[in-house]
Amino acid sequence: MLEALKQQVLEANLDLPRYNLVTFTWGNVSAVDRERGLLVIKPSGVKYEDMRRDDMVVVELANGNIIEGKMRPSSDTATHRALYLAWPDVGGIVHTHSRHATIWAQAGREIIALGTTHADDFYGTIPCTRQMKREEIERDYEWNTGQVIIETFAQRGIHPNAVPAALVNSHGPFAWGKDAHAAVHSAVVLEEVAYMALHTARLQAELTPISQTLLDLHYLRKHGQNAWYGQN
Amino acid sequence: MLEALKQQVLEANLDLPRYNLVTFTWGNVSAVDRERGLLVIKPSGVKYEDMRRDDMVVVELANGNIIEGKMRPSSDTATHRALYLAWPDVGGIVHTHSRHATIWAQAGREIIALGTTHADDFYGTIPCTRQMKREEIERDYEWNTGQVIIETFAQRGIHPNAVPAALVNSHGPFAWGKDAHAAVHSAVVLEEVAYMALHTARLQAELTPISQTLLDLHYLRKHGQNAWYGQN
Amino acid sequence: MLEALKQQVLEANLDLPRYNLVTFTWGNVSAVDRERGLLVIKPSGVKYEDMRRDDMVVVELANGNIIEGKMRPSSDTATHRALYLAWPDVGGIVHTHSRHATIWAQAGREIIALGTTHADDFYGTIPCTRQMKREEIERDYEWNTGQVIIETFAQRGIHPNAVPAALVNSHGPFAWGKDAHAAVHSAVVLEEVAYMALHTARLQAELTPISQTLLDLHYLRKHGQNAWYGQN
Amino acid sequence: MLEALKQQVLEANLDLPRYNLVTFTWGNVSAVDRERGLLVIKPSGVKYEDMRRDDMVVVELANGNIIEGKMRPSSDTATHRALYLAWPDVGGIVHTHSRHATIWAQAGREIIALGTTHADDFYGTIPCTRQMKREEIERDYEWNTGQVIIETFAQRGIHPNAVPAALVNSHGPFAWGKDAHAAVHSAVVLEEVAYMALHTARLQAELTPISQTLLDLHYLRKHGQNAWYGQN
Repeated sequence: MLEALKQQVLEANLDLPRYNLVTFTWGNVSAVDRERGLLVIKPSGVKYEDMRRDDMVVVELANGNIIEGKMRPSSDTATHRALYLAWPDVGGIVHTHSRHATIWAQAGREIIALGTTHADDFYGTIPCTRQMKREEIERDYEWNTGQVIIETFAQRGIHPNAVPAALVNSHGPFAWGKDAHAAVHSAVVLEEVAYMALHTARLQAELTPISQTLLDLHYLRKHGQNAWYGQN
Repeated sequence: MLEALKQQVLEANLDLPRYNLVTFTWGNVSAVDRERGLLVIKPSGVKYEDMRRDDMVVVELANGNIIEGKMRPSSDTATHRALYLAWPDVGGIVHTHSRHATIWAQAGREIIALGTTHADDFYGTIPCTRQMKREEIERDYEWNTGQVIIETFAQRGIHPNAVPAALVNSHGPFAWGKDAHAAVHSAVVLEEVAYMALHTARLQAELTPISQTLLDLHYLRKHGQNAWYGQN
Repeated sequence: MLEALKQQVLEANLDLPRYNLVTFTWGNVSAVDRERGLLVIKPSGVKYEDMRRDDMVVVELANGNIIEGKMRPSSDTATHRALYLAWPDVGGIVHTHSRHATIWAQAGREIIALGTTHADDFYGTIPCTRQMKREEIERDYEWNTGQVIIETFAQRGIHPNAVPAALVNSHGPFAWGKDAHAAVHSAVVLEEVAYMALHTARLQAELTPISQTLLDLHYLRKHGQNAWYGQN
Repeated sequence: MLEALKQQVLEANLDLPRYNLVTFTWGNVSAVDRERGLLVIKPSGVKYEDMRRDDMVVVELANGNIIEGKMRPSSDTATHRALYLAWPDVGGIVHTHSRHATIWAQAGREIIALGTTHADDFYGTIPCTRQMKREEIERDYEWNTGQVIIETFAQRGIHPNAVPAALVNSHGPFAWGKDAHAAVHSAVVLEEVAYMALHTARLQAELTPISQTLLDLHYLRKHGQNAWYGQN
């Protein structure tokens, strides 16, 4: 069941060590089949080098019940579910502790658009959530991790299609896209942008975002309705 | 047509991931055939591992018309054309978002010559352009990106043969040379120099350039009219 | 004798270059057989690429006498012995000069828990010892290096099972675990956490630890008595 | 002639890219045969991947005359000669533009001993030379580069056997040892120590050296007259 989606999720998970986004097994990718209401996600605690297509776990989107799989799904599954349920266009989600995105998350700081590398894939600031409250941590922590991301985007009026990543305060990044591969793409760009913003902050005491015109040009030529842009 | 030049451009493009200058397909190299008035450039959106000589696109230098090639040329082709048309000695051009050069570009700061590594290949400050104006971005953006580089060199009286790279404000580096391989060489040195300058700025509150005498010795023994210098 | 333990210690030592924790031979891993009162440790000065299982040295835990082995044991053996003798649950120990943990040790600064990456494996602050005194250095230096770690944990009321690593002032990190593999795991996470804390310190003038609730959730779900957590 | 020494010099040169100390061909290693008064050094401008034993150039120590070799010797040969002539125990010399040592050289700052990693191989501060004078640069630059290193050690009373490396102001590091392999060892440790000192400077506003007692213990157990120390 869902063999093609399992294969896509497997490949996307294997991309995490390839792009240096993970240490040990600290990362997970999922993808969703909206018609069947099912989620395919990495199993918990399996090494990337041992991972096979049939290790992927199939979970019911609505309630988290395991439908297929010999192993437990990633412990972050409830966060993935929350995001899929809130945002209908999202087809794949990645969570990592990639070094530089995590540094911004630990500092509790958002990443503003400082250059066209950012603008090419994120239409403005990549937000950082507020700290989670005691009761949100103590009960349904992973589910609430998703909720605090959703709240952040709602309160700030950011559309998740336009800014496909978030920093969870004191924790690390989540990134997404139309499928699992696009989600990994977002996670790689986020890490790159986080590295460059960190060091730009050394050279510029006050960080100022690029102009709206430049942001529009770079983002919209690639992601706008009439995108004409390939890749460089 | 232009098989040797296509081969050179292919190899120079493949050098970008080899020297860690690119993520995904974020970079492009071109070379020019001045006699025929033609440009050979990387196609848009092709992965480096899949790239073949015959994927290179041939474009008319004067007007950007595609002369040969199944794919679209790099979206930065107009910037390359602007530089070739303004600067008759340039034979190859590279654009990347290499991390540390981009950091200086995002900060809108030039890189002064802080050591002999810089002086060996750049005869003084590597300039950063002004920010582009709204109308320059909204119309003919890539062509105007080239124009703002040319303007910067003209206004500051820098000769492009002596300083074969520029930082485009809020964007990233362009580098060039007598052919595609020389352009990649400039791009690699620029990235190295950008990394070292970034961290030198931590140890020295006020950055001061090396002496003119030392700059002259290092640059001119390698690039001067009677260059006698090999490489270390 | 102790072939399985030697094999484990060999593999754990070979993990040090694999995880980029060492330059040359600057690192060592040991494991203990509590029943027999014996320690197995890397020999001194052997290159990782030449290391064989039978090069591992067997040492008496109580007094450091060599029981088996053609080569001298690591010069840090007495530090390992001191820790094993003080802390009965520790089964494996690692010492490295991994770059970022060593940077904190050189600065004489502890690493507080700035995020969940830290909390997943360390239940609070990773302490840095005081500087060692002249007489501690001049006599039984390696043994006293162990004693100053033990003193630090005792004075601050930190349990070595809960925080399986220490920074030795002006020197570098020691890490441990229930066996040699767990010790390497601690050393890898420490290095990762040290890197991220170093750069978080750039973005946050005043470092503040994560909430106790978040620390509890992350640490205890993985390491608490009823740990239910796999790995992501 | 000198086949064994050529082989040693070749291997030591090939270690430079292996330890990530060089970009392109920016580095060179030499060794000396004191009895014959001859120097073996890397040729100028040859790629590491193409370098063969018989490419090594044999030069007369006293006057720099080429004795054997189809190619020109490294352009830094006169600096090597100056150091060999001044310091009779030195058997091998390395010059690189390794990133972090060069950063300290560009900042014109010495590296004090901040930890035992430093103390294990350098008995105290690694000095940085003064800036070279106009006339030293314009005439016999490479020879004078050696002289300014020698002057620095003499004026500060540092023995080159005890501190086998120097930073040349605005330029980069030279390192040495009893033979070519030992010289590469010094260069690798210097780069490691330079990286760690750079980042220690972020965590400690005022850098203070480790205690003389700790410096003595670490340096002398490995390099003292009765060195008993292997390697970890």
